Amino acid sequence: MIYLYGQHAVLSALDNPKRHLGRLLLSKTSGKADEIQQAHPHLKIDFVSQDDLTHKFGRDAVHQGIALETDPLATPPLEDLIEHHQGDESSLIILLDQVTDPHNVGAITRSAAAFGAHGIVLPKHQSAPLDSAILAKTACGGVEHIPLLTVTNFARSMEQLKKGGYWCIGLDERGEQPIDKAPLKGKIALILGAEGKGLRRLTKDNCDLLTNLPTNPLFPTLNVSNAAALSFYEYSRQNKE
Amino acid sequence: MIYLYGQHAVLSALDNPKRHLGRLLLSKTSGKADEIQQAHPHLKIDFVSQDDLTHKFGRDAVHQGIALETDPLATPPLEDLIEHHQGDESSLIILLDQVTDPHNVGAITRSAAAFGAHGIVLPKHQSAPLDSAILAKTACGGVEHIPLLTVTNFARSMEQLKKGGYWCIGLDERGEQPIDKAPLKGKIALILGAEGKGLRRLTKDNCDLLTNLPTNPLFPTLNVSNAAALSFYEYSRQNKE
Repeated sequence: MIYLYGQHAVLSALDNPKRHLGRLLLSKTSGKADEIQQAHPHLKIDFVSQDDLTHKFGRDAVHQGIALETDPLATPPLEDLIEHHQGDESSLIILLDQVTDPHNVGAITRSAAAFGAHGIVLPKHQSAPLDSAILAKTACGGVEHIPLLTVTNFARSMEQLKKGGYWCIGLDERGEQPIDKAPLKGKIALILGAEGKGLRRLTKDNCDLLTNLPTNPLFPTLNVSNAAALSFYEYSRQNKE
Repeated sequence: MIYLYGQHAVLSALDNPKRHLGRLLLSKTSGKADEIQQAHPHLKIDFVSQDDLTHKFGRDAVHQGIALETDPLATPPLEDLIEHHQGDESSLIILLDQVTDPHNVGAITRSAAAFGAHGIVLPKHQSAPLDSAILAKTACGGVEHIPLLTVTNFARSMEQLKKGGYWCIGLDERGEQPIDKAPLKGKIALILGAEGKGLRRLTKDNCDLLTNLPTNPLFPTLNVSNAAALSFYEYSRQNKE
């Protein structure tokens, strides 16, 4: 069992028919009980105090007086995801190479969902834990809209994607081509590395193309979630044309 | 006097000739003292423990063992900024309408600097405090590259910008035009509102154009700093052409 907390994260989870809904922990003062109970008549609501939630999740947790007991979402293996989108003219799958901060993975998940990407792939080791409440909170409900899946062998996943018709494009500051000139039409696997460290050597070698972001040479640094958001946007822009 | 903390924030401040440099508080175990002292021979370094810094800035502060005493940067009034860029063919100035979270303002500052914007304008009231250490930390040195200025009358600032040749474009989910089709060439004042609340009514009314982001209708929500980053990118893309 895991917990989700935060208003957007929990309300989106309640609306996801694929979610197993356990108890809802709701602050007595939230004023939302009737509305929630009406929409989800079978949901068991336990009324708690804000302090109970802070005590439970820690004082850094922005729980907003609401938390949900649930199970991790079932995620498809990569081969199923690829097969599911076999007939699609365009499809975006995102690979995160060692992005360990759950805030960053959460923010990327939110943007990926907002731009209609089809999945986010993370290595099983050295990445943010997928059932992290912080990740779900930062994703603002995005985790209900896009599958996050882990793989044990990142290089092999890139191979699978290539065989499935995806072009593997890595974001790298020393990339050959600025992203607005990179061919992002069709089926694209976009690979992003952690801030500072960037993509691992092997990951880079396995990319079909490395692309960079057209930033100010005097201050070329972008937060990884912002870099992600603008690549998803550029993908969507090119595929809309 | 104010404090900056965090590695990128402090090291960028040390390299900014416009910064008054007070004492540097450096963790004994940082191993960076020699390098910093060599680059800044007149800098007074006080060696402290990590705990001293945590005690000073609070346990949520990601100080990374380094902090600097300094003064707030002098910022030009808006009219000077406009005049300074009078002869420019293109120029981007960003207005933040009631964005109060210093993490968001910091992240936007970082992206704005990365895309070479010329200034960030915030209302004096109802915005993040400009001398916030969190803002500077999140901006990762961006505050040294782009002026942040406050104004008392947001509507009047928009008027000034219009007179200075800037087109006022507001980001709004009910905007008339998707941003990739919006005319962003030349001198643009881009106005962003707080997440959820969006732009204030008067701000919207004063815009020459309202533009939206082409997101998934089922999950159209983007974090304000991601929305900002991709509009700066789109501005830079159109002006490069």
